[in-house]
Amino acid sequence: MKIHYECFACAANQCQRIVEMGTDDLELRKKGVVEAARLMATISEDSIPAIFGSDVFLGVYRVIGNDDPFREYKELSNRLAERVVSDLEKEEIDLRTALKLAIIGNVIDFAVGYSPEKIEEDVREMLGEELYIDHSEELFKVLKSAKTLLYLTDNCGEIYFDRLFLKKLKEAFPRLEIYIAGKEGPIINDATVEDLQNAGFEKLGRVVSTGTRIVGVPFDRVSDEFRAIFEKVDVIIAKGQGNFETLSEINDERVFYLLKAKCRPIARELEVPQGAMVCLRAR
Amino acid sequence: MKIHYECFACAANQCQRIVEMGTDDLELRKKGVVEAARLMATISEDSIPAIFGSDVFLGVYRVIGNDDPFREYKELSNRLAERVVSDLEKEEIDLRTALKLAIIGNVIDFAVGYSPEKIEEDVREMLGEELYIDHSEELFKVLKSAKTLLYLTDNCGEIYFDRLFLKKLKEAFPRLEIYIAGKEGPIINDATVEDLQNAGFEKLGRVVSTGTRIVGVPFDRVSDEFRAIFEKVDVIIAKGQGNFETLSEINDERVFYLLKAKCRPIARELEVPQGAMVCLRAR
Repeated sequence: MKIHYECFACAANQCQRIVEMGTDDLELRKKGVVEAARLMATISEDSIPAIFGSDVFLGVYRVIGNDDPFREYKELSNRLAERVVSDLEKEEIDLRTALKLAIIGNVIDFAVGYSPEKIEEDVREMLGEELYIDHSEELFKVLKSAKTLLYLTDNCGEIYFDRLFLKKLKEAFPRLEIYIAGKEGPIINDATVEDLQNAGFEKLGRVVSTGTRIVGVPFDRVSDEFRAIFEKVDVIIAKGQGNFETLSEINDERVFYLLKAKCRPIARELEVPQGAMVCLRAR
Repeated sequence: MKIHYECFACAANQCQRIVEMGTDDLELRKKGVVEAARLMATISEDSIPAIFGSDVFLGVYRVIGNDDPFREYKELSNRLAERVVSDLEKEEIDLRTALKLAIIGNVIDFAVGYSPEKIEEDVREMLGEELYIDHSEELFKVLKSAKTLLYLTDNCGEIYFDRLFLKKLKEAFPRLEIYIAGKEGPIINDATVEDLQNAGFEKLGRVVSTGTRIVGVPFDRVSDEFRAIFEKVDVIIAKGQGNFETLSEINDERVFYLLKAKCRPIARELEVPQGAMVCLRAR
């Protein structure tokens, strides 16, 4: 997916958030956004938002001298989400509900003034909503005969919902060989390999790095190891917008997108209403 | 005033608003923000927000092929404000209240889903608020012995509140020679010379152009005619943030700023709480 017109201001707003989270020094914040402005000039009509944005954000990280401005935010997200998911796990959850929970996990901003009770309330409300596009039966059918699955994670917090879904997938398809991918290093609130290891994903599959800190799956930046895994697997589950933005550049029907169309560009691209939850097979 | 760190994202958001108001063509909107990104790379830590922003905005105007994206917005603002002010004019209004109304006029976004009744309600509520910095008595004292006044207008809509204030100034200081400055051409929702002429300002003083479309008073861009007027006058009333951003670069005690500190950078620069209304003499 190429940028839409809204991506520029959105990236600028994210840069502001990065400098605010990354340093209290007003002069350093200013240096950070001046660098952001300089880097953003490389944007073109064909830029992919996740890639172009990551490059700008990492440049801002360098200038403000903070390699992980979202560290606290991510830790809080993980703690909160873990509590909510551990409550949910006490109940009988079927595979399709677990899939929906994985999408719902993509929606909630766990770290923004949220109590676990309020999150649970919101999660249950969203569980009542229908998926706008629902290829989940197709996904489960494909998984039945698949040997290998690559699961592309997205954000911290959300990963605890992914963990629940992966547990259910493992129960339903016990012979499936599972790869779970995180980022090589911190980029915004994305889950790193370390985050996945800390959350115990190694019990569910082989935790692998995309080989890059760039959001999504930027094919010219991923490691050879990751590319080899990507190429050989039978099914790919791609969580969230960043993975969609990069993978929609190829039409690979092994890919199932699980996301909520949070912003207008993604909704426009998917031809769904903004806010729609989808489990969509790529064509 | 040099940029603060928030100015970058704010300018980017204004660019988005410009392309949205300026064209319905999504591809053209995208071309517009790509141009904005390119132009914004010229930002430096010493940039003045009003000047840097105007240059970027005018570049976007060129790319989207719309020389006045705010045209309808400005017309609506003017119509609404004119109605509200004509109601207010039926009452006894003293000079200080008229000054406050001129500040309040700077606050209200007349064109955003507002009914005249709601605007009047808001105006009356704000009239109940104190000015956070109030050098109005000093202004009136200075005007008593002044021969010439330059009144720097800001936005459409707001100008009808300025007109009311100027009427009261003319009544109070009948021998005062008044110059009223507008922009040479359209830039965001600023009042142009034409807007001032249409609103009948020529009955209140000599309507002059700053000689540029750049917001505020960019000294290296104004016309020689305007510069001569600026240099010779005894008192300058500068409305709004753009005039403050440019004029605060010189410390000229002829200048009185009338504004509401709408954004954090201006509030930080003035050392007032965000949202404070001020009548401030420059030192």
